[in-house]
Amino acid sequence: MSEGSIITLTTDFGVKDPFVGEMKGVILTLNRSAVIVDITHDIASYDIHEGALVVGESHRYFPQGSIHVAVVDPGVGSARRPIVAEAGGHYFVGPDNGLFSLPLSRSQGARAFQITERRFLLRKESPTFQGRDIFAPAAAWLSRGTGPEELGPPVADPVVLSFPEPVSEGDSVTGEVAVIDRFGNCITNIRGDDLRGFGSSYRAEANGTGATPVSHYAEAPEGRLSCLINSSGRLELFAKNNSAARLFNIDRETKVTVRSR
Amino acid sequence: MSEGSIITLTTDFGVKDPFVGEMKGVILTLNRSAVIVDITHDIASYDIHEGALVVGESHRYFPQGSIHVAVVDPGVGSARRPIVAEAGGHYFVGPDNGLFSLPLSRSQGARAFQITERRFLLRKESPTFQGRDIFAPAAAWLSRGTGPEELGPPVADPVVLSFPEPVSEGDSVTGEVAVIDRFGNCITNIRGDDLRGFGSSYRAEANGTGATPVSHYAEAPEGRLSCLINSSGRLELFAKNNSAARLFNIDRETKVTVRSR
Amino acid sequence: MSEGSIITLTTDFGVKDPFVGEMKGVILTLNRSAVIVDITHDIASYDIHEGALVVGESHRYFPQGSIHVAVVDPGVGSARRPIVAEAGGHYFVGPDNGLFSLPLSRSQGARAFQITERRFLLRKESPTFQGRDIFAPAAAWLSRGTGPEELGPPVADPVVLSFPEPVSEGDSVTGEVAVIDRFGNCITNIRGDDLRGFGSSYRAEANGTGATPVSHYAEAPEGRLSCLINSSGRLELFAKNNSAARLFNIDRETKVTVRSR
Repeated sequence: MSEGSIITLTTDFGVKDPFVGEMKGVILTLNRSAVIVDITHDIASYDIHEGALVVGESHRYFPQGSIHVAVVDPGVGSARRPIVAEAGGHYFVGPDNGLFSLPLSRSQGARAFQITERRFLLRKESPTFQGRDIFAPAAAWLSRGTGPEELGPPVADPVVLSFPEPVSEGDSVTGEVAVIDRFGNCITNIRGDDLRGFGSSYRAEANGTGATPVSHYAEAPEGRLSCLINSSGRLELFAKNNSAARLFNIDRETKVTVRSR
Repeated sequence: MSEGSIITLTTDFGVKDPFVGEMKGVILTLNRSAVIVDITHDIASYDIHEGALVVGESHRYFPQGSIHVAVVDPGVGSARRPIVAEAGGHYFVGPDNGLFSLPLSRSQGARAFQITERRFLLRKESPTFQGRDIFAPAAAWLSRGTGPEELGPPVADPVVLSFPEPVSEGDSVTGEVAVIDRFGNCITNIRGDDLRGFGSSYRAEANGTGATPVSHYAEAPEGRLSCLINSSGRLELFAKNNSAARLFNIDRETKVTVRSR
Repeated sequence: MSEGSIITLTTDFGVKDPFVGEMKGVILTLNRSAVIVDITHDIASYDIHEGALVVGESHRYFPQGSIHVAVVDPGVGSARRPIVAEAGGHYFVGPDNGLFSLPLSRSQGARAFQITERRFLLRKESPTFQGRDIFAPAAAWLSRGTGPEELGPPVADPVVLSFPEPVSEGDSVTGEVAVIDRFGNCITNIRGDDLRGFGSSYRAEANGTGATPVSHYAEAPEGRLSCLINSSGRLELFAKNNSAARLFNIDRETKVTVRSR
């Protein structure tokens, strides 16, 4: 890896406190040329599941060799291991709690290492802010060309969470809402591929409200629940120019059923 | 344009979701040297008018040759055109819905092109996230030296919104609140130049409350409505160390009248 | 200082309005190679005390020669001086209102200069946005190698605020909550060093609720007030996976007493 490596940050730290700024200071102290990109710092506090979905989706838009730091870490300071993983040509740095489940489970030849070599860490380490004291310097060293295997011993069994998968039954598919975005759009765990047999003649239903498929937001009628295959290839329920979550009382994990018609 | 070009981003995407991070990934994949600056991602959802004011004002503080991506796009995926415009030595990339009204209407020799050349777009385009799939790559190609005219055919009639203009009548000027900032300061569409005849012997009024002009915030009395010509050259109503909008029940579009005294 | 200098930004401007983006435009117009890092823009409006704590703490994670711009400025436009200070190998740029109290009071040989030389400022200056018109260009010139003494005359008596210090009495120490972070953790002004005599056999108390020390978050029981020496070396009260501030009704300035046991 050369100068100018990209380091992305995904955390639940928010941007009110100086936590993220301090991580960037540590990175830039070690590598002034690192290009640091915030993915989000508004993962719901301690929600590893949401963090894993965001990291798993967003890293794919960055070039090979990018380094993705993610810190959503209810177990900070406990026995859970700090790790660096390499999967699909990307690097991942953070706690070994499932945050990297998607790249680790989807990439052949993925490998992980526990971060133990103290010479790569901040000298005066604290038990509560490993984002700054362990993960930021580890990412900076990777960006300078240090190999992941230099950071510590291999981890054979990094934590991989399972995510609920949609279930097909006859000509229906049942999944659930996985993420609600800031517009109130409800993104399900059902992928466009799961509906391939249906063409566009299907109907989705959530909380007893039916949703008609359209091909883009602007085509939908106002005030009604509509759906489409979104920018991540997933079935998304939405209400034109409004919050579908609020209007139709949809939450994360609300069941969504799609039927052929 | 050389390496190190500046690309600014103005959207209503918020920063909770990874949308903005993904746009940056797409840009950096095409041009690692791009300098990306967030203007704001908190434009009110779908509020083209507010987005147009922010882009029209903020781009002036960037050097010539900067590229300004703006995405506030209720019509995403519909027939409205994705465009790149060149005006006043700056480039603008986004939907053709009026977001670039101010530079387009103020600059002589402004020109616009529809983005149609698929080789400059993300390979697997989605109908719902043109910020990532069309506008980010188009901006990155511009930053690499691609001419705007290479992206597609000219657009002779880009959408230009009209903004309410203050009205002068005898020795009074009536305008309205255009923006309320995070401090609750109320920025009007009345420019300092509109009040040139008045000197400092004028009085503004909004919602029946009078406001006395001062030359800077610190000079104003506490708990009263005051006004000044602000950092953008506009008449601004404020309450010292407080929210004028909340205290005096002022909204966007609240009428503001200035009278000589 | 060479190209690639780091400029950090700490303000109460929020990120809804384009204020911060405009400051970055001004900086990059003068020095395209500046590396700009946001510390936070969510200092409570006009809260100089909070800003001073954030700047005093966060700058230490950046390399020597970094330039720290801070703008929390209820007196903008009044007689208070715009200054640049040099302390501990770092530069500080902002209003002379106490924001730089911690580096100024802790560093031997600190020096400060009033920013008066108009050739280093934005040509068309406004009385209300000195962040953009004075502090951003001053920081950019510093990053280009201009010496702080070139910006204006020395300031012998920059404003230094005093911060409440914890009081030791017999085998107890009484301090207060200085900051509440986004997780609801309550960070006190008591440093780990103040408790050195106690070992780990102490007990903290706030609002009549006792807190037991643990060595890291994960070790604490759920639903109870716990405490530890945090990543800044300060005593912090917290509730595992919850908001201690909300659960135990703790505010900034709530008294905290630590007793040996």
